[in-house]
Amino acid sequence: MGNPGDRVSLGETWSREVHPDIDSERHSPSFSVERLTNILDGGIPNTELRRKVESLIQRDPVFNLKHLYFMTQDELYEDAVQKRFHLEKLAWSLGWSEDGPERIYADRVLAGYNNLNVHGIAMNAIRSLGSDEQIAKWGQLGKNFQIITTYAQTELGHGTYLQGLETEATYDATTQEFVIHSPTMTSIKWWPGDLGRTVTHAVVLAHLICLGARHGMHAFIVPIRSLEDHTPLPGITVGDIGPKMGLENIDNGFLRLNHVRVPRENMLSRFAEVLPDGTYQRFGTPQSNYLGMLVTRVQLLYKGFLPTLQKACTIAVRYSVIRHQSRLRPSDPEAKILEYQTQQQKLLPQLAVSYALHFMTISLLQFFHSSYSDILKRDFSLLPELHALSTGMKAMFSDFCAQGTEICRRACGGHGYSKLSGLPTLVTQAIASCTYEGENTVLYLQVARFLMKNYLQAQVSPGSIPQKPLPQSVMYLTTPRPARCPAQTAADFCCPEVYTTAWAYVSARLIRDAAQHTQTLMRSGVDQYDAWNQTSVIHLQAAKAHCYFISVRNFKEAVEKLDNEPEIQRVLQNLCDLYALNGILTNSGDFLHDGFLSGAQVDMARTAFLDLLPLIRKDAILLTDAFDFSDHCLNSALGCYDGHVYQRLFEWAQKSPANTQENPAYKKYIRPLMQSWKPKL
Amino acid sequence: MGNPGDRVSLGETWSREVHPDIDSERHSPSFSVERLTNILDGGIPNTELRRKVESLIQRDPVFNLKHLYFMTQDELYEDAVQKRFHLEKLAWSLGWSEDGPERIYADRVLAGYNNLNVHGIAMNAIRSLGSDEQIAKWGQLGKNFQIITTYAQTELGHGTYLQGLETEATYDATTQEFVIHSPTMTSIKWWPGDLGRTVTHAVVLAHLICLGARHGMHAFIVPIRSLEDHTPLPGITVGDIGPKMGLENIDNGFLRLNHVRVPRENMLSRFAEVLPDGTYQRFGTPQSNYLGMLVTRVQLLYKGFLPTLQKACTIAVRYSVIRHQSRLRPSDPEAKILEYQTQQQKLLPQLAVSYALHFMTISLLQFFHSSYSDILKRDFSLLPELHALSTGMKAMFSDFCAQGTEICRRACGGHGYSKLSGLPTLVTQAIASCTYEGENTVLYLQVARFLMKNYLQAQVSPGSIPQKPLPQSVMYLTTPRPARCPAQTAADFCCPEVYTTAWAYVSARLIRDAAQHTQTLMRSGVDQYDAWNQTSVIHLQAAKAHCYFISVRNFKEAVEKLDNEPEIQRVLQNLCDLYALNGILTNSGDFLHDGFLSGAQVDMARTAFLDLLPLIRKDAILLTDAFDFSDHCLNSALGCYDGHVYQRLFEWAQKSPANTQENPAYKKYIRPLMQSWKPKL
Repeated sequence: MGNPGDRVSLGETWSREVHPDIDSERHSPSFSVERLTNILDGGIPNTELRRKVESLIQRDPVFNLKHLYFMTQDELYEDAVQKRFHLEKLAWSLGWSEDGPERIYADRVLAGYNNLNVHGIAMNAIRSLGSDEQIAKWGQLGKNFQIITTYAQTELGHGTYLQGLETEATYDATTQEFVIHSPTMTSIKWWPGDLGRTVTHAVVLAHLICLGARHGMHAFIVPIRSLEDHTPLPGITVGDIGPKMGLENIDNGFLRLNHVRVPRENMLSRFAEVLPDGTYQRFGTPQSNYLGMLVTRVQLLYKGFLPTLQKACTIAVRYSVIRHQSRLRPSDPEAKILEYQTQQQKLLPQLAVSYALHFMTISLLQFFHSSYSDILKRDFSLLPELHALSTGMKAMFSDFCAQGTEICRRACGGHGYSKLSGLPTLVTQAIASCTYEGENTVLYLQVARFLMKNYLQAQVSPGSIPQKPLPQSVMYLTTPRPARCPAQTAADFCCPEVYTTAWAYVSARLIRDAAQHTQTLMRSGVDQYDAWNQTSVIHLQAAKAHCYFISVRNFKEAVEKLDNEPEIQRVLQNLCDLYALNGILTNSGDFLHDGFLSGAQVDMARTAFLDLLPLIRKDAILLTDAFDFSDHCLNSALGCYDGHVYQRLFEWAQKSPANTQENPAYKKYIRPLMQSWKPKL
Repeated sequence: MGNPGDRVSLGETWSREVHPDIDSERHSPSFSVERLTNILDGGIPNTELRRKVESLIQRDPVFNLKHLYFMTQDELYEDAVQKRFHLEKLAWSLGWSEDGPERIYADRVLAGYNNLNVHGIAMNAIRSLGSDEQIAKWGQLGKNFQIITTYAQTELGHGTYLQGLETEATYDATTQEFVIHSPTMTSIKWWPGDLGRTVTHAVVLAHLICLGARHGMHAFIVPIRSLEDHTPLPGITVGDIGPKMGLENIDNGFLRLNHVRVPRENMLSRFAEVLPDGTYQRFGTPQSNYLGMLVTRVQLLYKGFLPTLQKACTIAVRYSVIRHQSRLRPSDPEAKILEYQTQQQKLLPQLAVSYALHFMTISLLQFFHSSYSDILKRDFSLLPELHALSTGMKAMFSDFCAQGTEICRRACGGHGYSKLSGLPTLVTQAIASCTYEGENTVLYLQVARFLMKNYLQAQVSPGSIPQKPLPQSVMYLTTPRPARCPAQTAADFCCPEVYTTAWAYVSARLIRDAAQHTQTLMRSGVDQYDAWNQTSVIHLQAAKAHCYFISVRNFKEAVEKLDNEPEIQRVLQNLCDLYALNGILTNSGDFLHDGFLSGAQVDMARTAFLDLLPLIRKDAILLTDAFDFSDHCLNSALGCYDGHVYQRLFEWAQKSPANTQENPAYKKYIRPLMQSWKPKL
């Protein structure tokens, strides 16, 4: 782990004396935590660079996170803008490239506490959808912060269903301009980050209308605030949408466009173009315009969900070896709460999800990089699969992350409700991600359509090779496999082949059942649209099983590759087993349904699951230490490396303005009321 | 419904024109909404009184809730204290009794927005645990707000496990005083509501020590702030514990006691007493001291969970008929999102839970009132069952309420994340209740111990009548029933007898399996404590199934009693069916495990469930209207009676300080950064 001193906060006097209850967890580790950290970072040089960047950030007082929990929304906004601009200056001075690893590492430390992250999303959209000239021009302006941009898609009355957006961009050939307009109240752009008070430009998604014909959604670069004095430009009404459940530092905004004119060159035109006379030319598929969102979803996995869940696990697991409660037997002292099976059942599966997500992200990024360059060259053959995979993984892991951070929070009892624990911030970040960049149910149903289509294609030529080969991720649908699970003991359920096959079997069955339900309804005379709606709950279930199967198989394969690291392979194998079995037990009805598993086998799987808990519990602190979050970054009174939970809670609480200021309610309300009875005492 | 005008906000100009999309939902109702409201209220006079109180509250500008979403924590605290004291003055002037219905109705409108609710909990504790003289003295002082109290149990390092509390009360016979002391940092009282800045007295739970002997937890009344100037009394360190995930208006506090002396009379002594010479006398069981918490848990069901979930349902269902998204078929306009099966699957089960909770609360209150007076008279025979029932229902319904409010929130897409929707406040209230007044896992395990004990007792005399009859709520454990469900069609699953029996069967099986697992381990040589811990996950599952069964049976019986209201009985029967079937499908593995249900029967149950959705969907608006929440009380831009969602979101957002104040970050950070590149443009 290197020097533990590297990861404790500065300026806390007790921080080098580690609490014995957590210290003992780190004695005689069964594997090298440092080596696991290197594996997670993708190599020793990355770990070194990351720590160097973190150390730079943590030494700089502007990047202090300590007082954030006591700030008002307004103060949080100002602080987050300051942090972002300070970071930009630092990056320039050190020559960090725009997409270099240093930026990613810096963001990891400041996660969620610096603003203008949608500027990056908007720039991604420009790079995905813009022509080479547009990328050269706007990319440079954006990189230098000569302009600040947001990505304005969602409207007050419209979200994930892009075709429903109402904003219009009508081409005026006489001036070679687009007239961008919000025709209704429901068409006001609503939610874009940094829009409320900060940005100068927006990438606006709008319906293109040329020569009276509608051509669907396209993206337009629209200046919205003066570069001179930041006031809204003519025709623009812009502001903040008000307080939210979390993400309080971000000025999510609204934007009403009243016949705002932008030049023809402002339509992003890699995949479609409007000629000066208004002729419309398309070079891509109608789906091309969603590319920007695809990139964002992939980035969310590793920049958003992964660190959020890892941090929550770190905080909750560390607290669970400091907190003692109840006695395992009457003569014992109170036990660490991590000794309780029920606490292990809550936390350890979240740790397993964290590792599953890590390895899934690595694979998805590889697939993304290999297919994305083809797509930019207008070869769209891999787009449907890339879309289905990124969509499904965004939906599943944002769900798991929302659920997991909340389980971690609740597993810390009352203190998990205190902002000082750091957990409420992680939870409110996580649950937001179930909705933004595509609402999860809608995304799962997109996966379901992909699965139904491929299932039907595979049926066209059963047994033989389909005319068009199935995408790699759904090839398993055509693999024959036995109708009964061969496991005979609990130990058999810790065989990756057994549970991977079980997941493949159940996922394929649910996809088949869902398709057949829809087809049965259609055969009975229900039209295809009603039939889809009336079976969508069943399709949803199938899509979830498919995503789970993909992640189990991927985790299994990633662990197999670690055979030159036997100790680490062993502990990760346990986590992989736990991940797969937890999914089986949570969905045991799907496995029992047609007798693939018997009741006795489910009991074996449960025994295997419960037996894994104490094994993983032994390594739990080390497995979270390996994420290598500094105390600065965790910003949690419960989660510090040294385990001094109660002192920190007490000291941090003293800083609350309620403890340093007078209580205005006393003289105004409390005293008058109490004294109104005085004469009668 | 009476006059719809009664339930729309004052001063909103459009509020009497109902949006056609919601208006159409109220045409030709299949039952009388007003009559259902009366049933929920427990009679027409109650509805009338409630509306009268609500109208009084809503007319008074002090009780306005509109600006709360824009307030800082400090402002929220001051506002909530003001509301509470204003309410007290109103109550006095109108002669409302302390526990009368008017107070309950007033709290329903102001839910969560007036402080000093722990004052009531502390007063309950005094009334449960105090002698008649103590109740007379302190009850009067508390009623008149001559003192303001909190209930101080939880400590920095100790929560639900009361025996672990460290605060000590040592009796000093020479002065006839108790010396109350916090011996460690972890023994500092932490979390009590209203403690941080407000109360004058605390009911402190502490270990009693007399003549060197320890006698367990007892409750002591401890003055902590001066009645003259509100400063902390000698030996007292008190303050606010800092910011939380929600409940921001409440000053949860900490309290460190340094050898604070209180007179002998300040120990609450209904069930135990210390004589002047230090002799200790006990009149009750050691469990008697938990009575205060028992009362609080029962009250939480109807004062806390029920309105919280009902409000979330009202908001989400109303929004779901205004929001349109995607098309059911290409030629259609965009559909109301409530038309989608996936949206129905999210929301309608929450509506069913709301009604299940309502009827469960009614029954539990009846049982509570009939057994509590015996307990106060020191007849403890019904205490174990009352404890198990109130504990189990607190755990299950706070879980459901947390889950349900979040499902409602997320079902509203991005707008559910805006505080203006009202949903984030409901969610953060609901999730807190999973932890306070007993952490849910701990509570479920207490139910599990009760079940295990009764199961074993029933086994002692199998077939014959047990020596001591089983408590009424677990009598079903001894009822013989068939090992296969007789249902043959989907329609059979809408037969209450079928699903109630199914739940009884599965609950009894899980309780038996859990007990047998523990016993098998013990027979293999594991000691009873390890055996319990190693099977606690299994016991947890059994306890949950038991609670669900109790609630299903109770819902069924409540609906049966409504046979003089056939239309209402019909719609509530649908909800009862949905509630039971949703539970079966979510836990289908438990029903399939030993073949009680076959896979084909689970499919039938699913068909029955899916067929219920469109039936209930037709009445969904009416079923939420029947809760009869005023717009004032919902305080939601999404949930108003008139359906004008988008106008409200837009108008309310304009009030954000971010839109009315200058942006300080512009001149400080944004402009300098953008202009640093100017020369190079």
